[in-house]
Amino acid sequence: MKIDDNFYMKLAIDEAWKYQLLTYPNPAVGCVVVKNGAILSIEAHKEAGKAHAEVNALKAAFLKVNPNSVLKTLNNSHDIHDYLKKNHNNFFEDCEIFVTLEPCNHEGKTPACSELLKILKPKRVIISVKDPNPKASGGLETLLDANIDVDIGILQNDGYNLLLPFISWQNKTCIFFKMAQTLNGSIDGKISSNRALAYVHTLRDKIDLLLIGGNTVRIDKPTLDARYIAGRAPDIMIYSKNKIFDNNIPLFKIPNRKVFISNDLFKLLDYKFVMIEGVYTLLEKFKERIDFMILIVSSKIRKGENSLNDIDLDFEIMHENFIGEDKVIFLKRK
Amino acid sequence: MKIDDNFYMKLAIDEAWKYQLLTYPNPAVGCVVVKNGAILSIEAHKEAGKAHAEVNALKAAFLKVNPNSVLKTLNNSHDIHDYLKKNHNNFFEDCEIFVTLEPCNHEGKTPACSELLKILKPKRVIISVKDPNPKASGGLETLLDANIDVDIGILQNDGYNLLLPFISWQNKTCIFFKMAQTLNGSIDGKISSNRALAYVHTLRDKIDLLLIGGNTVRIDKPTLDARYIAGRAPDIMIYSKNKIFDNNIPLFKIPNRKVFISNDLFKLLDYKFVMIEGVYTLLEKFKERIDFMILIVSSKIRKGENSLNDIDLDFEIMHENFIGEDKVIFLKRK
Ligand SMILES: [Zn+2]
Ligand SMILES: [Zn+2]
Repeated sequence: MKIDDNFYMKLAIDEAWKYQLLTYPNPAVGCVVVKNGAILSIEAHKEAGKAHAEVNALKAAFLKVNPNSVLKTLNNSHDIHDYLKKNHNNFFEDCEIFVTLEPCNHEGKTPACSELLKILKPKRVIISVKDPNPKASGGLETLLDANIDVDIGILQNDGYNLLLPFISWQNKTCIFFKMAQTLNGSIDGKISSNRALAYVHTLRDKIDLLLIGGNTVRIDKPTLDARYIAGRAPDIMIYSKNKIFDNNIPLFKIPNRKVFISNDLFKLLDYKFVMIEGVYTLLEKFKERIDFMILIVSSKIRKGENSLNDIDLDFEIMHENFIGEDKVIFLKRK
Repeated sequence: MKIDDNFYMKLAIDEAWKYQLLTYPNPAVGCVVVKNGAILSIEAHKEAGKAHAEVNALKAAFLKVNPNSVLKTLNNSHDIHDYLKKNHNNFFEDCEIFVTLEPCNHEGKTPACSELLKILKPKRVIISVKDPNPKASGGLETLLDANIDVDIGILQNDGYNLLLPFISWQNKTCIFFKMAQTLNGSIDGKISSNRALAYVHTLRDKIDLLLIGGNTVRIDKPTLDARYIAGRAPDIMIYSKNKIFDNNIPLFKIPNRKVFISNDLFKLLDYKFVMIEGVYTLLEKFKERIDFMILIVSSKIRKGENSLNDIDLDFEIMHENFIGEDKVIFLKRK
């Protein structure tokens, strides 16, 4: 196996995928710091408002060599920036920084990564894709102006797949379909482990709107909140022509959420980040409108109805994560 | 993410899985060489009779730093051993060697890895699992006698999963089930890509016996050889009570292979490495007899009959490989 730029970039990309969607409205980004050929850190951006991937990775790299530095007590991104700017002592001069996305160039909730890198002066910065967001881009130029070697376009296709949700919610409404099944496609009964269910609740906590089919609401009488992680319950759109529902269905009783019943898909465009939870019948209806699909696969084979309509879809597997014993597959329509 | 022994061992294990089953009758083994914290090589044993994982990794590590060494022209395992023994010049003294299996201790088709390591004197050898094969074990003691630091038991569960096929064909007959399906479990029509089909032919070239159901033979009239890779056609057992088959079915016309029709499962025990190719009906019959299952999943959703009987199986995912756009999932019965 070749130990080259692609190898290190792949580590950064895989780390970023662990937090895919959870960084909303920010992009998922990963970063690897290599000093004289040794991997010092592999980190990612974990949540909007918290430190960027580069900052987490630079901090972890510095602490790997200086484990008793006061830096370990700092968590706020501004504080980490300030500490590293003042105390780097040329530590990063022989480092290569692999980052899946062009370092940000503007001061938002956190300071600009490009400004930090400019001061730390690493030997080389290796970037998978340029920032498609004009507000944040310019990092490349800042690095080049500081005479830092930059290579861009490493594992570009993987880097774009990682950014796909971000590009979609930046430009319009990001809509993804979530479905759970066994290995053999059975969708009957309780399929997912509790850890996988908690993951779904983590997603519900992040999204703006959850779309669900009317029949599912009538039959399953779901709650559709994020209680497993004590999270925020998203607004609900019940996709149905018939607007009559039993008001005792739990989902109607969650405070601070809007529930509406509609079959007008334009309503989706009032939101930026929409998850559709359903099975094949709903997928068939929405297949042309989704940006990607999350398939949660439980590693068992079960008897069960597999409602295969005339559905015929080709996917590219963008990534897979393991959630305990279940898999989460991120699929892009081909 | 923690950059620790587990991290490097995982790289070794993942590399070894790329050659899982292809090393028959040897075990799949991976090896990573780290010098002063820098990964110099990630290699695996690729085929019986060829260099062991440690030898491939030591060679690649040495060449990474000495790219013009004459070592690059050497491929025979004996020659690599001899070259490294004579020319290591203490290169490996500050190296850590991560290997998924205790280094072999006996001279077989290739010289013993423990003897080579004893001379190269790495700083530390990190081993996932001890060799279950008494003929090859003793490597640990050889290393300890040479005053080399050894840590054993790193990612032991993953290390054992990697060894599962080997342990099974060492002790008895290794029987695995191979099935192909779409993401949603459809098994109708042509499912796999040509690359995945070539992978199946690679497996057929390695196994001793292929078991196939009588109905499949009657309906599909298959050839069941390894022509995509110009490989050896395995012996065939047609699992059927009714012994009457059309002799024009291509599988009967392949030279140098034995074909027999039987429903006596004891016949399997005349072989060491058996693949069963089939779908759910055959899986239901053999589920208690298989050591593991290989599920080839094509990343598409298709209409199709999913013959779900009363089958109810729980698996642990041991590993997944990508073969072009298809996935190969190695499943162990729970
Ligand atoms: Zn940033
Ligand atoms: Zn060996």
